[in-house]
Amino acid sequence: MDRKQFRDLASPERAREVIDSLSLGGGTEHVPLAEARGRVLAERIDAGIDVPGFDRASLDGYAVRASDTFGADEGDPAALELVGTVHAGEEPAVTVGDGECVEISTGAVMPPGADAMVPVERTDEGDGDRILFRTGVAPGDNVMRAGADVAAGERALGPGTELTPREIGLLSALGVDEVPVRRRPTVGVVSTGDELVRPGDPLHSERGQIHDVNSYTIAAGIEAAGGEPVLYPHAGDDYDALEASLREAAAECDLVLSSGSTSASAVDVIYRVVEDLGELLLHGVAVKPGKPTLIGELDGGAYVGLPGYPVSALTIFRTFVAPAIREAAGLDDPASARLDGRMEVRERYAEGRLRYMPVGLVEDGDGQRLVYPVDRGSGATRSLAEADGVVAVDPDTEYLAAGESVSVDLFSPDVRVPRLLGVGEDDPVLSRALDAVARPRYLAVGSRQGLRRLRNGVPDVAVTAGPVDRDVDAAELAAWSREWGLVVPAGNPEDVAGLADLVDRELRLVNRTTDSGLRTSLGNAAAALAEERGVERRAVVDAIGGWELTARAHESPARSVLGGDADAGLGLRATAEHLDLGFVSLGEQRVAVHVAADRAEKAGVAELQRALADQSTFEGLAGYER
Amino acid sequence: MDRKQFRDLASPERAREVIDSLSLGGGTEHVPLAEARGRVLAERIDAGIDVPGFDRASLDGYAVRASDTFGADEGDPAALELVGTVHAGEEPAVTVGDGECVEISTGAVMPPGADAMVPVERTDEGDGDRILFRTGVAPGDNVMRAGADVAAGERALGPGTELTPREIGLLSALGVDEVPVRRRPTVGVVSTGDELVRPGDPLHSERGQIHDVNSYTIAAGIEAAGGEPVLYPHAGDDYDALEASLREAAAECDLVLSSGSTSASAVDVIYRVVEDLGELLLHGVAVKPGKPTLIGELDGGAYVGLPGYPVSALTIFRTFVAPAIREAAGLDDPASARLDGRMEVRERYAEGRLRYMPVGLVEDGDGQRLVYPVDRGSGATRSLAEADGVVAVDPDTEYLAAGESVSVDLFSPDVRVPRLLGVGEDDPVLSRALDAVARPRYLAVGSRQGLRRLRNGVPDVAVTAGPVDRDVDAAELAAWSREWGLVVPAGNPEDVAGLADLVDRELRLVNRTTDSGLRTSLGNAAAALAEERGVERRAVVDAIGGWELTARAHESPARSVLGGDADAGLGLRATAEHLDLGFVSLGEQRVAVHVAADRAEKAGVAELQRALADQSTFEGLAGYER
Repeated sequence: MDRKQFRDLASPERAREVIDSLSLGGGTEHVPLAEARGRVLAERIDAGIDVPGFDRASLDGYAVRASDTFGADEGDPAALELVGTVHAGEEPAVTVGDGECVEISTGAVMPPGADAMVPVERTDEGDGDRILFRTGVAPGDNVMRAGADVAAGERALGPGTELTPREIGLLSALGVDEVPVRRRPTVGVVSTGDELVRPGDPLHSERGQIHDVNSYTIAAGIEAAGGEPVLYPHAGDDYDALEASLREAAAECDLVLSSGSTSASAVDVIYRVVEDLGELLLHGVAVKPGKPTLIGELDGGAYVGLPGYPVSALTIFRTFVAPAIREAAGLDDPASARLDGRMEVRERYAEGRLRYMPVGLVEDGDGQRLVYPVDRGSGATRSLAEADGVVAVDPDTEYLAAGESVSVDLFSPDVRVPRLLGVGEDDPVLSRALDAVARPRYLAVGSRQGLRRLRNGVPDVAVTAGPVDRDVDAAELAAWSREWGLVVPAGNPEDVAGLADLVDRELRLVNRTTDSGLRTSLGNAAAALAEERGVERRAVVDAIGGWELTARAHESPARSVLGGDADAGLGLRATAEHLDLGFVSLGEQRVAVHVAADRAEKAGVAELQRALADQSTFEGLAGYER
Repeated sequence: MDRKQFRDLASPERAREVIDSLSLGGGTEHVPLAEARGRVLAERIDAGIDVPGFDRASLDGYAVRASDTFGADEGDPAALELVGTVHAGEEPAVTVGDGECVEISTGAVMPPGADAMVPVERTDEGDGDRILFRTGVAPGDNVMRAGADVAAGERALGPGTELTPREIGLLSALGVDEVPVRRRPTVGVVSTGDELVRPGDPLHSERGQIHDVNSYTIAAGIEAAGGEPVLYPHAGDDYDALEASLREAAAECDLVLSSGSTSASAVDVIYRVVEDLGELLLHGVAVKPGKPTLIGELDGGAYVGLPGYPVSALTIFRTFVAPAIREAAGLDDPASARLDGRMEVRERYAEGRLRYMPVGLVEDGDGQRLVYPVDRGSGATRSLAEADGVVAVDPDTEYLAAGESVSVDLFSPDVRVPRLLGVGEDDPVLSRALDAVARPRYLAVGSRQGLRRLRNGVPDVAVTAGPVDRDVDAAELAAWSREWGLVVPAGNPEDVAGLADLVDRELRLVNRTTDSGLRTSLGNAAAALAEERGVERRAVVDAIGGWELTARAHESPARSVLGGDADAGLGLRATAEHLDLGFVSLGEQRVAVHVAADRAEKAGVAELQRALADQSTFEGLAGYER
């Protein structure tokens, strides 16, 4: 291969320096005031006019010469001749002379001759056209002088000011309707994998196609960082099309991003285009994940090649790329992009390089933020929903102790800490109840795993189904029963009547993993059948085709039946009805929600409890009883 | 007047209740995934497909039957026949039989027959088409099973989830390209004052016109709260036009806002329209500012009449209206909308009702947030730029003590604390230097006021010009000199040579207020002239026409000269040149930047110092010397 060789991985600091050295756009554009919120001023704006532009009455009342009111009081009011009226928005048609006054509205122009005004509450109507003033005023009283608010020539807003509603207000007052703002950097996102299909387009799984996750994720991240994302679809299925997309993006954008490529050929195309239009400056960064990161100059702009796995791509984007986009857009690092918390469990390392560890966040009963590692493997899309951000762990850190304070870099500044963290068995009623909780997170790890995690002090609640191995040291928030059994094809064509049919006939089962409470109940049923038959449990289980064929998720066995890949699937009556399948009942099992001792008072827990106490949460779900 | 009578002011709690009782829209709309960031899910989304949709190779290598590799190790590799290749994105055209293997790329579909894969690093090429495996694998090794990441039927995201980049990623993986989201409430903003002119339209100050500040400010606030603002210009100059705008807005929007009206007639129109299309529910709230707030039902939606002054309107908007918009949009109260701080100065109250006190924020040398009251009068637009938010002070609070901890409700969640707070004399060089500081705030209150505030412990730096009254207990950050004198019309048509001309001839001066260092220098010059002539200072000053005619802002006297309203204005040579006016020098004065003892290390202070040490900050400004 004629690739440039980059033998050593660059340090993260070096990667930052290289990105900082690249030009990501800049320049000024003018936007209408109504669209200026969130933009950043490119230039200082000094007031071009006085605000107000005239001497302005501050109240409803009468414009006077102050000297005509000197000495006036309740007992001895001054009487002045009313010679006219000035309303707001009109030019005074009258002048105030000695002994005269003019009726004036709040905001109106002070008429010539007057130097003060008296609010109507301090006056009375006298005989004829005379007004009685029960108070004396000094020159300037109740008048806002021209320029008193903002004077022409005053510094109003500096360059780099982010325009929030109040700055928009000040610019309005100054009559600025076109605002000079920093141009947003345009960032092209080039999709590189042949196997990637846009969401919405037909997906051919048999050909190994998957949806393009990174393009939309990164585009949203670009937007959140103040850039303008442009998606370049990878239309063709050959490398010429990829090359064409890269060249188009390079010509049109300040920064071009691509993410991972599973084939060396695609990397070759990227190398060729980057070297042709610019220079590859860095290949490989000593971080995990993110080692394959590429950084280069491209057509006067910049190029960054992100890793391919979604969590890795988002981590490298938020760590190295988003700050550069914000800098180019003139935006501050958002205060909300980093949170502190306390490690709740011990984590070991021996990485030898900087690691960005995906973590989730949860608040304990005192509102303290706890941090726990999320490790579903770097390829898991699901980590996107299960983690909130990453903790940077130094190469020389051997372990993070429980209780240690850490900083969490959120995936994006708009990520919020979940208000409820639940773990355990998956259940349709529970899922409905979670819909009534604001910002919950639920990890369907099964009953056993759920209880284990509850004991480790991380989640707020754990949900179990069926018998539990040992005593649960937690209060029960709610409990109900659900009917479980075998999901079979619609109409039950094989006439399955119970577990014995699976043992005695050549039928294919799809089971659940051992963490699941459903699996425990099925195991107990198998043991009961063995006892009934006077044989070993093992003999019953071995005779069931597919006993070891397990699915992690609760609908998966039923969906295998639906797809014609199995004759029976371990599942719920509710699932069978939901998917219009047949069902053979094997019994009922108790589902219980256990709450951690210190979390009972959490708002999210209370919301879950309320929803589970509500009859409507159970309505229309077959096989459920409260 | 035939108005409904609302004798008692409603409590703030009651106002909140009434707003909460109104319908502000809702409903669901579908948006493309690429536009979904920041939106809120209207419905739960369960996975409709397995991710991945097929058994997927996790690495580059060979697909095998695990049993064929059992017992293989470095010393005794297993040899298998290579029978084909599967790339990512293609359907396997080959089946793996006993003793066979297939080359496979990361992400490719596992071929039928294979149940595990071995990474290429653990293999060697053998003779002919044979591959040598230096390790044994178990079934499932290095394979991501279909649905292992996300399984069809699993709960993915709940209703009410705000879509950040990572949720966008998860939706992409699930192939969701149209996302059901909460509809954003549309909020109409009706401009009510005859005297209001849109920024950009010609402003006739002589008729008392001012720019419409509230419409744009509130529109930006609506946007920040997750609503869709619609501006209804008040086209005509009569109340029929206002009524038409209100009716149009009521028909088209979920919520209609108007702000203050200086005339009773406009309020009458609002009453009429609200009573005709709905019902006025509340008039007057026991808060300051915000007493005139109106709340009603309008055409099935809601109406809120905000007070007229910009800071009051924004305060009532952020306190009562923005939460209702966010609620309707399904958005959480942003964490960044409230900050805690410590009152730096004592504030007295005897209000008898809840007061929202406008405050500014600054950080001290230790990064502690200090809060100080900003009181430029409720009519001041400038408070928008000088305050960061409000502190709610209870009716029964007599005073806030210095050092007391308070909560600041920011004007909007995007408001950031200034990084530098300067006070004192206005100066063109200083203004340039401030341009080089990120997020500074400078209050041009004059030299005297500046020093007083510095002593009170609030600002970071104070800037003085000319002689200072007493010792300044603060280090000098920088100093320079500037030429000051009389700004006269271009070409100096009156042939003014010095201060004596103003004393001896009938010329009109515009002076500066006594807080200004320029005024102090002019006073000293008058005293010197008096001594020279052997008269009292008073005699010299009284003889100058306009000595008492003072302007607060530094360019204002020169602009009066420019406008033909004065023959001379106290000012700087730099200002005269900037405005193409003539200049009569009266001397030079020293400008000094004093830094508070505990703030020398602040980043903003360092940035200011750097800019003032840079020669280019002074370039092209006449009359300056470092």
